[in-house]
Amino acid sequence: MRTPLTLALLQCAPAPLDVAGNLQRLDQAAQQAAAAGAQVLVCPEMFISGYAIGAAAVQQLAQPADGAWAQAVAAIAQRHHIAVVYGYPEQDASGAVFNAAQWISAQGQRCLSYRKTYLFGDLDSNQFAAGAPSAATFMLQGWTIGLLICYDVEFPEATRRLALAGADLIVVPTANMPAYDFVAQALVPVRAYENQMYVAYANYMGAEGDVHYGGLSLLAAPDGQAVAQADRQPTLLIATLDDARLSTARAANRHVRDAAALPPHTL
Amino acid sequence: MRTPLTLALLQCAPAPLDVAGNLQRLDQAAQQAAAAGAQVLVCPEMFISGYAIGAAAVQQLAQPADGAWAQAVAAIAQRHHIAVVYGYPEQDASGAVFNAAQWISAQGQRCLSYRKTYLFGDLDSNQFAAGAPSAATFMLQGWTIGLLICYDVEFPEATRRLALAGADLIVVPTANMPAYDFVAQALVPVRAYENQMYVAYANYMGAEGDVHYGGLSLLAAPDGQAVAQADRQPTLLIATLDDARLSTARAANRHVRDAAALPPHTL
Repeated sequence: MRTPLTLALLQCAPAPLDVAGNLQRLDQAAQQAAAAGAQVLVCPEMFISGYAIGAAAVQQLAQPADGAWAQAVAAIAQRHHIAVVYGYPEQDASGAVFNAAQWISAQGQRCLSYRKTYLFGDLDSNQFAAGAPSAATFMLQGWTIGLLICYDVEFPEATRRLALAGADLIVVPTANMPAYDFVAQALVPVRAYENQMYVAYANYMGAEGDVHYGGLSLLAAPDGQAVAQADRQPTLLIATLDDARLSTARAANRHVRDAAALPPHTL
Repeated sequence: MRTPLTLALLQCAPAPLDVAGNLQRLDQAAQQAAAAGAQVLVCPEMFISGYAIGAAAVQQLAQPADGAWAQAVAAIAQRHHIAVVYGYPEQDASGAVFNAAQWISAQGQRCLSYRKTYLFGDLDSNQFAAGAPSAATFMLQGWTIGLLICYDVEFPEATRRLALAGADLIVVPTANMPAYDFVAQALVPVRAYENQMYVAYANYMGAEGDVHYGGLSLLAAPDGQAVAQADRQPTLLIATLDDARLSTARAANRHVRDAAALPPHTL
């Protein structure tokens, strides 16, 4: 039984290299989101450190998935009784650094870690190693949930992989520019429709050095409509996932079942 | 060198079981399309026989890909100096019947045959066997071209398969109902965008027995915009593919190259 799940998508300007400030902003947003009735707060891509900060800063700041940032976020999550999804540079034991996102529960547990698989041009390639394709999911309130990061969601392979693994919701921290508004305006809703799932897309707005971000954060429903969508201003976008809407969409459309019935699923 | 390629998408009411009448309509549309400067006329799904005609009629009417209909269409194509893409029930040597489409050149040659791979619910399953996934293409005026039919295009697997095979254009005869307007309004443009290709979608309007079709035929450009889109009225929609627009989109976006670089392409 999937119970109503309310997300709060934090659409804010990036604060590059200001880790302490970002953790403080996260604490405030978690408080505000919890007060609004949300069970999950979703931050944009690389929220803890900033995104377009360069390879040297990324290498210097990167932490393991269970490092000090995870502990700080866990404390925030527990303080406000809300799950937190955040982006950060993750360093593995070999020293490789990934563009990562992590879901920490309201109880402070690390539920799901993800590494960006499809690197976006030089901006990603200069800073990060690519994660392996993953269909990892976990469950919350009856919802099967996966993570992707920004450019990943533009690849139907990535969303289908999670759909075939049973995902009802994919949460996507992002850092998307106005040149690619089409992604938030059209592509994300189509991903939701063609996979009979919810897709939550949390973007920055404003500038990070020379890079500008376009907002338009949204929760797309399995019927292809936006449950809620932001404009380009700072906001904490509140939107709720509903089991009846999911079931109706899955009765009306059966792309995932039909795709699963056609082996091999090789492109 | 891709030279400008002009398509004429025939959006008309179906005429179920009226093969002679449909061939006559095809002849008229070919004349009109050629006069408008088109090099290709694209008809809706199962145009020759009608689509929702039932298994018995489909079995009775079905022809091989090189049968009398192919010869009749070749004569029309040659008479008006225009290529023709048409849908029809195809029977193979074993007696199996497929929901098929075929491209016949202005010289009357069979350039490409395709069998619908993703069957749309009972409507297709009761009438047709499923075609095997195909990435077959051919070239015209420098454009690499593939075919899909209706529901196929809703599967990103099908379009990506053709994109990875080098397709610049996918032509999609369709028979889509207003309940699925989202496909013409949002999904087809996203297919074009995410694959850096043109997608031509030629739909019926009006009724075929109890089934109603919603028009909205379009040519979607590689930048995700519609070059031209019909409303719900009968029309012959004229739209031109442009190499510069394709090249610009491929410079701006590299999803196909990035997808190709990530083996294995298994969902």
